[in-house]
Amino acid sequence: MSTAAPELDDKRRAISVLRHEPGENKLCAEEAQIAQPGQSKTVPKAIPKDELSRKALLYSKFYGGKVGTAPKVPVRSLQDFGIWYTPGVAAVSLAVQADPELSFEYTGRWNTVAVVSDGSRVLGLGNIGPEGSLPVMEGKALIYNYLGGVNAFALPVCIKDEEHMISVVKALEPSLGGINLEDIESPKCFEVLDRLRAEMSIPVWHDDQQGTAGVSLAGLFNALELTGRTLDNSRIVLFGSGAANIATARLLIEAGADPRELLVVDRKGILHPEREDIDQLSIKNKWKYELALKTNGDRVKGRLFDALRGADALIAAAGVGPNLIKKEEIAQMNKHSIAFLMANPVPEMMPTDAIAAGAEVVATGRSDFPNQVNNSLLFPAIFRGALDVRARTITDTMVIAAAKELAKHAKDKGLTKEHILPTMVEWEVYPQVAATVGDMAVREGHARKKLSRDELLHTSREMIEHARKTMDSLRKSGVILEPPE
Amino acid sequence: MSTAAPELDDKRRAISVLRHEPGENKLCAEEAQIAQPGQSKTVPKAIPKDELSRKALLYSKFYGGKVGTAPKVPVRSLQDFGIWYTPGVAAVSLAVQADPELSFEYTGRWNTVAVVSDGSRVLGLGNIGPEGSLPVMEGKALIYNYLGGVNAFALPVCIKDEEHMISVVKALEPSLGGINLEDIESPKCFEVLDRLRAEMSIPVWHDDQQGTAGVSLAGLFNALELTGRTLDNSRIVLFGSGAANIATARLLIEAGADPRELLVVDRKGILHPEREDIDQLSIKNKWKYELALKTNGDRVKGRLFDALRGADALIAAAGVGPNLIKKEEIAQMNKHSIAFLMANPVPEMMPTDAIAAGAEVVATGRSDFPNQVNNSLLFPAIFRGALDVRARTITDTMVIAAAKELAKHAKDKGLTKEHILPTMVEWEVYPQVAATVGDMAVREGHARKKLSRDELLHTSREMIEHARKTMDSLRKSGVILEPPE
Repeated sequence: MSTAAPELDDKRRAISVLRHEPGENKLCAEEAQIAQPGQSKTVPKAIPKDELSRKALLYSKFYGGKVGTAPKVPVRSLQDFGIWYTPGVAAVSLAVQADPELSFEYTGRWNTVAVVSDGSRVLGLGNIGPEGSLPVMEGKALIYNYLGGVNAFALPVCIKDEEHMISVVKALEPSLGGINLEDIESPKCFEVLDRLRAEMSIPVWHDDQQGTAGVSLAGLFNALELTGRTLDNSRIVLFGSGAANIATARLLIEAGADPRELLVVDRKGILHPEREDIDQLSIKNKWKYELALKTNGDRVKGRLFDALRGADALIAAAGVGPNLIKKEEIAQMNKHSIAFLMANPVPEMMPTDAIAAGAEVVATGRSDFPNQVNNSLLFPAIFRGALDVRARTITDTMVIAAAKELAKHAKDKGLTKEHILPTMVEWEVYPQVAATVGDMAVREGHARKKLSRDELLHTSREMIEHARKTMDSLRKSGVILEPPE
Repeated sequence: MSTAAPELDDKRRAISVLRHEPGENKLCAEEAQIAQPGQSKTVPKAIPKDELSRKALLYSKFYGGKVGTAPKVPVRSLQDFGIWYTPGVAAVSLAVQADPELSFEYTGRWNTVAVVSDGSRVLGLGNIGPEGSLPVMEGKALIYNYLGGVNAFALPVCIKDEEHMISVVKALEPSLGGINLEDIESPKCFEVLDRLRAEMSIPVWHDDQQGTAGVSLAGLFNALELTGRTLDNSRIVLFGSGAANIATARLLIEAGADPRELLVVDRKGILHPEREDIDQLSIKNKWKYELALKTNGDRVKGRLFDALRGADALIAAAGVGPNLIKKEEIAQMNKHSIAFLMANPVPEMMPTDAIAAGAEVVATGRSDFPNQVNNSLLFPAIFRGALDVRARTITDTMVIAAAKELAKHAKDKGLTKEHILPTMVEWEVYPQVAATVGDMAVREGHARKKLSRDELLHTSREMIEHARKTMDSLRKSGVILEPPE
């Protein structure tokens, strides 16, 4: 039967009452190209052949995805569906209808986060489209789940423009406790984040902005302390003006940096209010424009070389190295200088070169060098804390508090040039950061549920332990198999 | 620390670089009322006090949701994140970018379904809003997961109108293997379903239409056989003209019923092309209008009483009973008549009354009467089969094949007046229906992945067993606790 040709009445098919032929198989990538020729997709690069890449491809196919749905409730017999579904569920729906805030108590909403991307700037790969971004967003959901105990799921979307993205994400609000935006190109990401934060009553987080800014701030706090500086009396150069560095500049100011001592350097040189493209900037990128107006109090002109003269710290998020920054540029900085070289997979310059040129504390985005500036240290914990108090938003104050908590943990273990940040294996850090964030949400009045810091610490520990217990249980019982070789 | 007042610099907060105050806490319910005064929410009913309702409320709060995210892959150490996330994941993203169809192989997309509702017609509760619908959609996701091995998650949305709903759901396509629409008011649901089916390349299913129609058809096949009839020579009356019965009428015609022998009865009486409201219908509800044109070949006029004269079968989906249909109406039908009384929780008339009035085979939507017409018999299996072949759509032909398979299983165990359909405990039915659906998708050319019926049977059995194994593992290890009393 399975190999015989189907005997279908073509005429009947033709008059299908639903008159349905499935849509032409236009994938988002193609549609987007038709709609927006200016935003055509990045030409695919060759797939790397290293061992991690080989395993990633092999395992992804073997498992067919990294996260899935699992029950949170028992089904002891099918009778239980009379509780979980109709008729019993009607009572729950009526309670929530009468007070929609109860959706945070009676459903999983309180712990659910969608990881949303349009695929327009994925990792270092460029605009690879939402389908291409899905493996990354699943990985992010897994990290949220495993390190933060958050029910996160991947939700790349095919969108036409900013307004469409805002309209789609806003529509999801009733189902979610929070939104993680990811890998959206700049400056689109600024508008999307600012609008959604203003218009939604659940936390909206763009990890490439707030997450990167938060961990950088944590590392910087300790690097400054180690070299005898404070944030408010240091000159800091930001090299690169994409999502990460624009957000970092904004957060540094919020955390107490003197904006006049910040210098932002992009491909055209140092930002300042008289730069020849300033009018254009005011139209095309108001966030960068605002920084051009308020930073660089000395009106330093020129390029990175000029910016670094007499600077205390450099935060580079400018693009894949290793030759984007030269030794002689680092040599312009003050003694005991700090260099964060954040590009992945290859930093803007190799840490050894930066040290040779005079930098004292060097950090990168890589796990195989000391001082990894790693978003995964922050976002699972920040959301853990925000969700535990059913926060309406994640403010800059909450992020700064989280950064300070993170910095404190590294400091407690002893600051050295090669130890300014905790690493992911330090489990105990996550509940502490979560509790700090939840506590700040309560203090600022953004919490739907008011818990004390002790209660928060207890809850967040429990939630994170629960996630690890789930992993153990699924592996031990063979539901999750060991990978092939 | 947790009780002390926060010492925040108000001035600094005021100049927050992200200039962010969270949105006013307008919930979707309120916004929708402002936007569409004509579609104001249903006034909440009193919460029922029965035992199932009590447990549903208690348990919902205890568990804080019915489904969550769980890993599908092992995290043996944090090093594994180099495979699941950056840098290894880049290879997977590049492969998918080069061929977006690979998103069905390398990610969990192939087995992921969003259960989407606007909350405009939830159960028998009316327009209770998306937040109110969330407990129901979570229950549906749990059933998908437990009975079908599908990674389903609840996704109620706050939408303005049909176009907004279509635009939101279409945007989700890159993340999903399919969409389950649920509890959307009619006639909006027809337009939304037809458009999405036409414009998307993954299955879009509205369970209140296709699911109900499919299970009704399965039951009807056996009821007709039991009473010596066939679909193409029977007169069938559809009482009620909402989502369920409009879809059932369309599917009956598709399955071989003679449209001229169908009679659709709504509040104004029997549909026919000369009815006084026909012009209005052509504008307000083109789906009902089309049925008015093609059904009722004898141009019978009047009300249910008149429609039932000489009818073989009645399918009622007209509203909560038990006094919506009278004995004298049933008495108008042919001998050995069939009555499906589908309203929940109380059928249009009590089965005992229908039998007393002359009906021979009676079915309802309730589990405590014989012959439950239960959507849960179909949707988990239909999606299991559709997802296993990565189907681009679920056609009517696939639904009809599923209905026939379902009918066959009841028949194989012996048809009686009180046994025309399987029940949910008959696990073996689900993989068989799934395999039939997948097989038909392959035959019709709607499958991305071509499997034989035997392969499909094997795969679907494995997937469903995996879901039950997951439940067992999580319960045994104490990850899922037993409920309180």
